[in-house]
Amino acid sequence: MRIDAPPRLPAAMTAMAEAIDRQFDQCLALPEDQRARLYAAMRHSAIGGGKRLRPLLVQASCDLFNVSFESAVRTGLAVECIHVYSLIHDDLPAMDNDDLRRGKPTTHRAFDEATAILAGDCLHDLAYSILVDERTHPDPFARCELVKALAAASGPGGMAGGQMMDLIAETMAFDLATVTRMQQLKTGALILFCVEAGAILARVPEDKRVGLRGYAHDLGLAFQIADDLLDVEGDAETTGKAVGKDAVAGKATFVSLMGPAQARAQAEMLVAQAKDHLHGFGNEAALLREIADFAIARKH
Amino acid sequence: MRIDAPPRLPAAMTAMAEAIDRQFDQCLALPEDQRARLYAAMRHSAIGGGKRLRPLLVQASCDLFNVSFESAVRTGLAVECIHVYSLIHDDLPAMDNDDLRRGKPTTHRAFDEATAILAGDCLHDLAYSILVDERTHPDPFARCELVKALAAASGPGGMAGGQMMDLIAETMAFDLATVTRMQQLKTGALILFCVEAGAILARVPEDKRVGLRGYAHDLGLAFQIADDLLDVEGDAETTGKAVGKDAVAGKATFVSLMGPAQARAQAEMLVAQAKDHLHGFGNEAALLREIADFAIARKH
Repeated sequence: MRIDAPPRLPAAMTAMAEAIDRQFDQCLALPEDQRARLYAAMRHSAIGGGKRLRPLLVQASCDLFNVSFESAVRTGLAVECIHVYSLIHDDLPAMDNDDLRRGKPTTHRAFDEATAILAGDCLHDLAYSILVDERTHPDPFARCELVKALAAASGPGGMAGGQMMDLIAETMAFDLATVTRMQQLKTGALILFCVEAGAILARVPEDKRVGLRGYAHDLGLAFQIADDLLDVEGDAETTGKAVGKDAVAGKATFVSLMGPAQARAQAEMLVAQAKDHLHGFGNEAALLREIADFAIARKH
Repeated sequence: MRIDAPPRLPAAMTAMAEAIDRQFDQCLALPEDQRARLYAAMRHSAIGGGKRLRPLLVQASCDLFNVSFESAVRTGLAVECIHVYSLIHDDLPAMDNDDLRRGKPTTHRAFDEATAILAGDCLHDLAYSILVDERTHPDPFARCELVKALAAASGPGGMAGGQMMDLIAETMAFDLATVTRMQQLKTGALILFCVEAGAILARVPEDKRVGLRGYAHDLGLAFQIADDLLDVEGDAETTGKAVGKDAVAGKATFVSLMGPAQARAQAEMLVAQAKDHLHGFGNEAALLREIADFAIARKH
């Protein structure tokens, strides 16, 4: 029988948020030339405000295989670069046209569209340059494998492919299977990268990652259903972004297709299932279990 | 005394252009789902039409150190992904607002802005995933060093930083030193990556790359002056893109600051100087020398 350790999540979340902000502050020091505005836009979007759930997932994954906190922070920083770049580009007028993000003006509103596009592009490069740095991991083979996995999670077979499907969802009635596939790409692929990152760095063979992949799959969907519920039931002040947008755009979501009650039940079932996938692990998976519970309990 | 081999450039250029198109065709096979439009946009921008001068520079650099043609093609393919992604984003209405590129409609004109942004983002990921693949080079350390160098050339300290300065050039009168610095970032950094790629893959120490870096520096400026001259003296049909735009935007260029005659003389001097930097090499540097001559002789 597993004996539960005291909850680690609140303290771990604060520590990771501070570590990520500190790293961004160092990486994005303002230069003394015309590029200062570009760096200011990167700082605006990258520093402060986020929950840093993805770096926390990387840390929880590294916990399982005794990978160092420093490796976890730097790998999490790279993921956050990708996440933030995608938010900047998705918020653009040509995409979701959002004015508010993490309680602040979106980057193209605080600066301008051209600067926002370039700031996103630069964070995109920064992600990969962080991963291949010796400080992230001494083993170059492991660093190459991380880059491969992140590029797969970020590109047309992952996040960007999901965003493309999301654009098409405005003009086409998606069924539940198609919404599920879209969300697996749009948010699930990057979550899978985070959950596997510890295994990649510890060179755990693929066939030993089945449980982790199952956890990531179920967590990703539960996380997205919770997001859809917040879009329907939340308010802009608490969530820090515009709400009710999916309904206005006429886009199919988990909530529009299943109704809020069934969607909530489904998210709870997925979280239980995600934790079941961790049965082979002991207390070293405590943080992963807590994150699963948090994914659907959060208010923003 | 160096004995000149017969010119290799025309045949090498054709062979590289075919190899790059073939690789893109394989990497960007259309999927059978809603992401097909995204892949179609990537194919539109990436396949056909380009001179592939950057991959050719990679090949010429690999010639110096006996690095294989396959490594050169794949490294060149990654550079071309970065180059094409930057063209897609730079052409957007919020940036240079161009309608024509390589004689075809720009990606946002042929598709739409959102698809163009995502297609650029996906080619950006593709660049890095190509570099860390075993097929590019068997040594993971060399692959990590390539990623580091490409991210430095592409990000805020390179191409994207130069583009940021270029945006500011529309609102500010740049002097010759500032235009030079802007162009070293905007086009020079990626050219430097290409010229150093062979040395990186062959693990040639930094202090043995001084001549190569000098060549890249001078070639990059000569190449840009030639571009500025084509913008003034060329026509859209031959260059495949809109011309005369810098003058309309009131942007300072090498030509506006020096006048066409002095700019042309400067470009010729830089090409001679670039070739002088190669004095330590024999016929293995023939392709680099031919490319330098071509940089200012070209009509598009």
